[in-house]
Amino acid sequence: MIGSLQKTDRAVDFLDGGQKAHKLAKELYPICRSLTGEGLRQTLKTLQRTLPLEIYEVPTGTIAYDWIVPNEWSVKDAFIKDPQGRRVVDFRESNLHLVGYSVPFRGILTREELLTHLYSDPAHPDWIPYRHTYFKESWGFCVAHRKLEDLTDNRYEVCVDTSLDPGHLTYGELVLRGRSTDEVLISAHICHPSLSNDNLSGISVAAALATCLMEEPTELTYRFLFAPATLGPIVWLSRNEAIVPKIRHGVVLACVGDSGPVTYVRSRSGHAVIDRAVEHILKHSGDPFSIKDFAPEGYDQRQFCSPGFNLPVGCFMRTPNGCYPEYHTSADNSDLIKPEALGDSIRKLVSVLAVLEGDKTYANQSPKGEPQLGKRGLMQDAKSLGLWWILNLSDGQHSLLDIAERSGLAFEKIEEGARALTACGLLREVEAHHS
Amino acid sequence: MIGSLQKTDRAVDFLDGGQKAHKLAKELYPICRSLTGEGLRQTLKTLQRTLPLEIYEVPTGTIAYDWIVPNEWSVKDAFIKDPQGRRVVDFRESNLHLVGYSVPFRGILTREELLTHLYSDPAHPDWIPYRHTYFKESWGFCVAHRKLEDLTDNRYEVCVDTSLDPGHLTYGELVLRGRSTDEVLISAHICHPSLSNDNLSGISVAAALATCLMEEPTELTYRFLFAPATLGPIVWLSRNEAIVPKIRHGVVLACVGDSGPVTYVRSRSGHAVIDRAVEHILKHSGDPFSIKDFAPEGYDQRQFCSPGFNLPVGCFMRTPNGCYPEYHTSADNSDLIKPEALGDSIRKLVSVLAVLEGDKTYANQSPKGEPQLGKRGLMQDAKSLGLWWILNLSDGQHSLLDIAERSGLAFEKIEEGARALTACGLLREVEAHHS
Amino acid sequence: MIGSLQKTDRAVDFLDGGQKAHKLAKELYPICRSLTGEGLRQTLKTLQRTLPLEIYEVPTGTIAYDWIVPNEWSVKDAFIKDPQGRRVVDFRESNLHLVGYSVPFRGILTREELLTHLYSDPAHPDWIPYRHTYFKESWGFCVAHRKLEDLTDNRYEVCVDTSLDPGHLTYGELVLRGRSTDEVLISAHICHPSLSNDNLSGISVAAALATCLMEEPTELTYRFLFAPATLGPIVWLSRNEAIVPKIRHGVVLACVGDSGPVTYVRSRSGHAVIDRAVEHILKHSGDPFSIKDFAPEGYDQRQFCSPGFNLPVGCFMRTPNGCYPEYHTSADNSDLIKPEALGDSIRKLVSVLAVLEGDKTYANQSPKGEPQLGKRGLMQDAKSLGLWWILNLSDGQHSLLDIAERSGLAFEKIEEGARALTACGLLREVEAHHS
Repeated sequence: MIGSLQKTDRAVDFLDGGQKAHKLAKELYPICRSLTGEGLRQTLKTLQRTLPLEIYEVPTGTIAYDWIVPNEWSVKDAFIKDPQGRRVVDFRESNLHLVGYSVPFRGILTREELLTHLYSDPAHPDWIPYRHTYFKESWGFCVAHRKLEDLTDNRYEVCVDTSLDPGHLTYGELVLRGRSTDEVLISAHICHPSLSNDNLSGISVAAALATCLMEEPTELTYRFLFAPATLGPIVWLSRNEAIVPKIRHGVVLACVGDSGPVTYVRSRSGHAVIDRAVEHILKHSGDPFSIKDFAPEGYDQRQFCSPGFNLPVGCFMRTPNGCYPEYHTSADNSDLIKPEALGDSIRKLVSVLAVLEGDKTYANQSPKGEPQLGKRGLMQDAKSLGLWWILNLSDGQHSLLDIAERSGLAFEKIEEGARALTACGLLREVEAHHS
Repeated sequence: MIGSLQKTDRAVDFLDGGQKAHKLAKELYPICRSLTGEGLRQTLKTLQRTLPLEIYEVPTGTIAYDWIVPNEWSVKDAFIKDPQGRRVVDFRESNLHLVGYSVPFRGILTREELLTHLYSDPAHPDWIPYRHTYFKESWGFCVAHRKLEDLTDNRYEVCVDTSLDPGHLTYGELVLRGRSTDEVLISAHICHPSLSNDNLSGISVAAALATCLMEEPTELTYRFLFAPATLGPIVWLSRNEAIVPKIRHGVVLACVGDSGPVTYVRSRSGHAVIDRAVEHILKHSGDPFSIKDFAPEGYDQRQFCSPGFNLPVGCFMRTPNGCYPEYHTSADNSDLIKPEALGDSIRKLVSVLAVLEGDKTYANQSPKGEPQLGKRGLMQDAKSLGLWWILNLSDGQHSLLDIAERSGLAFEKIEEGARALTACGLLREVEAHHS
Repeated sequence: MIGSLQKTDRAVDFLDGGQKAHKLAKELYPICRSLTGEGLRQTLKTLQRTLPLEIYEVPTGTIAYDWIVPNEWSVKDAFIKDPQGRRVVDFRESNLHLVGYSVPFRGILTREELLTHLYSDPAHPDWIPYRHTYFKESWGFCVAHRKLEDLTDNRYEVCVDTSLDPGHLTYGELVLRGRSTDEVLISAHICHPSLSNDNLSGISVAAALATCLMEEPTELTYRFLFAPATLGPIVWLSRNEAIVPKIRHGVVLACVGDSGPVTYVRSRSGHAVIDRAVEHILKHSGDPFSIKDFAPEGYDQRQFCSPGFNLPVGCFMRTPNGCYPEYHTSADNSDLIKPEALGDSIRKLVSVLAVLEGDKTYANQSPKGEPQLGKRGLMQDAKSLGLWWILNLSDGQHSLLDIAERSGLAFEKIEEGARALTACGLLREVEAHHS
């Protein structure tokens, strides 16, 4: 199964994967997602078309550690009409117009009253900002600043036809069982409405990885979590504490579709195998990248890395949240994300998973002096496959990733070398995945 | 009590403290101090005016490890007279003129004979050097080189009217008991005669810290030691071995009054809490500073860091001994030390003590996932007080100083954050001071 | 015995040693050495003239781990004759002409047929390359490229009058017993024919070290191994497993006669005492040098550092194998190696051995406070001999090399200081050589 992942590592395949991911993100774009609600279900059902996803519904009022699942939010309509009855701001045009979790409201407001409920960004006058008010009862509209400046009438009719009623928090989970019960957690948040990079890109890339992994049996078990940010993982953790100890590696996917170089945020420990695997792949990719230490900020690694769990979960991004101007605005649309970038993210993540799959520990079966590679026909490839390195360091204490790091050779070469040495009996695996 | 130390952290207070320290140093300047003798008693009695200092007298002949307390030295008079009977060198003008611990002598000497007993520094012809002869029976005078060149007569009358008789070695000790029996040792040497930076500055700054700490109860116990260099700490250690294990942190104060940036010499281990606390405060001060590794040289940290004790004691200085031209000369006078510099030393040391006082370890009481700060009204200050960092790292393994270091935030912010989180029940202290 | 090694550390002695080493290398140069055979015996017998070397003969067919001792190779004659009967390539002119381990052959060949058995280097047209065919039955000649271009006739007579018959693999071993059974292994490969730097230089320098060590008793036991590369150490290890645990330090000597700066390759662990000792001596030499991390390549440290042994064995070279153009060609002759360079290698290695001999651990017998050096007459040298450093760090946990490293002082100074402190009872050795 190592081979299967490696095998697909051809630029053409990944560009194809990137194009499919882009298409999926584009299809999901118009849906109005939020912390709860129909948009989440619709998004997860779209994924179910190709993936055997389980959808879970957690009732309003459920306690999850320090949190309570809130009422479910639904939007029927929302607009601002001018005195002529024209919809000058209309939820049907963009779901970003309505502040997420806005409570119902109907009324006639003066311009001044209305302005206290409007949000715009003068620095980017054509973009609609994105806002929500999850834990404070209020309502509001987000508008392009240029539009806001056009609102010169004295009175406006406002309609926020929403409801906040007992319902559910919805999340999706996909488990692909491998030979081992050791798990890799791959998580993407699904609560953002029409925003492509953050995080339709993460959803689509996660789906592409799942598709790829379903092609043949894997060593490790893969658990994909598609849940609304923050509360989703908290709810999931509270319902799955028995699974937590099985999670050996994890990665949160967000903002993986823009053209910027990859940014990886290390797990809380900073030297987990996932951290080392990602860094190894990025170093050997030849592309620019940056690695950051864990900080309690950013995406859902915050929950997985909370001290009560302290899981080895990092965050794989391209340009990080807040570091590109289109972040959390209507300009984070299907044009911002690129098939090539999505494909490159998939390609690099597949390589990372191949490291996790193959990072085994071996023992040299002829450990006293160097064995004679010539009589085994291995002299030709000894150097390129790091055979001497593998033989020297395979003392039961060094995994293949250790050997790749110390030798400076690519993991896939070392793994190929280990296969060759195993085939001729010079190497034997000594330890399953418990790094 | 943390608050009390922090509260006084206002520039105006510390300038006032610096002015008082300067005044005290100026008052102590004329006294003739040495390894033993009346000058030490007079100095310690001056401190007793404002501090409840205990004065200890250790008899001549007392054995302290490898050392023996020597005879006590007293000076009645000392001079060199020219053939005209004029005092051309006079102890009454400056106590630096007489080599410390000079044995009694009276006689008429030729110029050549006299010169073998005179010490001057041609590089600084107007300054009187400072010298002593503690463990070798001899006598001598220190003179400005310009004065030495004026000694052109053939014969001189020399009088060294000193005595070396059984008496005592004198030191002062002040203990300010805190809630904990864990101790902070603050030590300043008191054996130098009319030399301001080395070390009336250390004595005055230590006195200012004691005054500051007496204002309200502290967590830790503070032990101030005012003793002659080298032998003083050795004698103190030999009489207080039962106390040594209680010393959790310590700092030697010397040369803390000149205008140079702060220099801190780490304890022997190099990563004691005192080392990290000083480095943290200096880094966040915005002022230039330098940190040096321990070396068996310099001031009394040599004794506290000897292998039989290996205490976590560093040395806080401004310009180190030997690194300013006025060092150990008559130019190290009240003009060399500045109220502003003394005040800055006090201010930084108070901040260091505040770190030692407050460096506790907590446990997040809601460690699974992030707790909801919004419902507790803490979202506003979450970032500036490092609340997410504190919650993430408060797993019982990281102290507040650890968290300050890793987050890059100032300790006082982290401490304020910890108070806020403790107040709302999200944090609980798990460990007293035993770092 | 420490003194004896130090005593000889005079430039004149080492230049003399270098000249003797150069003479020995020149004498050994014409001998045709290979993996086995008479040339090895002749080489070792030459060494026996001055050193009490044991010569071991291991029969063909002996199994050594993954290897089998091959047939012994002998050369009676080898040449290529042109149609006029002139020897255009002649083994008697240079043993490099014949590919090592060439099987017997006699015949008339066309020019084209002959060319498939000839090896030359167009980049260095005047040099004969060096080649062998140890584990593949074949024959060939190495020739200067200019000579190869002169072979324009159509037919040539070829004679390879060699034999490959059951015999022995030959190696030499010299053990110089010290007070301790702890051993230092010094190894040089002896299988290269007329090549001076690689490795008549290593053989000669090893012989010089042995001569030096025989002058007086040593603390450690020294074991010199003169064996054909790769198979030699493997055979030795397979016959001496009981000795392996006694080897505390080791160094492989190769290419130690050229004029380049010293290159040292660390042992597999990277921080063995031998690694630190060599680095210390090179740092304090004032000469340029380079240190490389272990890699499973180069000389016989590959065998000693194989995972089944993992011995603390580094490799001391000047310009490394493959990094000088004359490497493995006829230009690696007696002119390439210099008496000065050989002498410098001897000198530095003697200094390294002096560190290994003297790297003991002491305990300060007056560990509480600093002892009084003045009354012991040691104040004069306290600084230059690092007495304060030795006293401070001699807590039973730091060896003299640790102290030299931390203080920045030369090991020989620290050792001299330790002797002075031991003489006056302030220091006592606490631990024999078991670092």
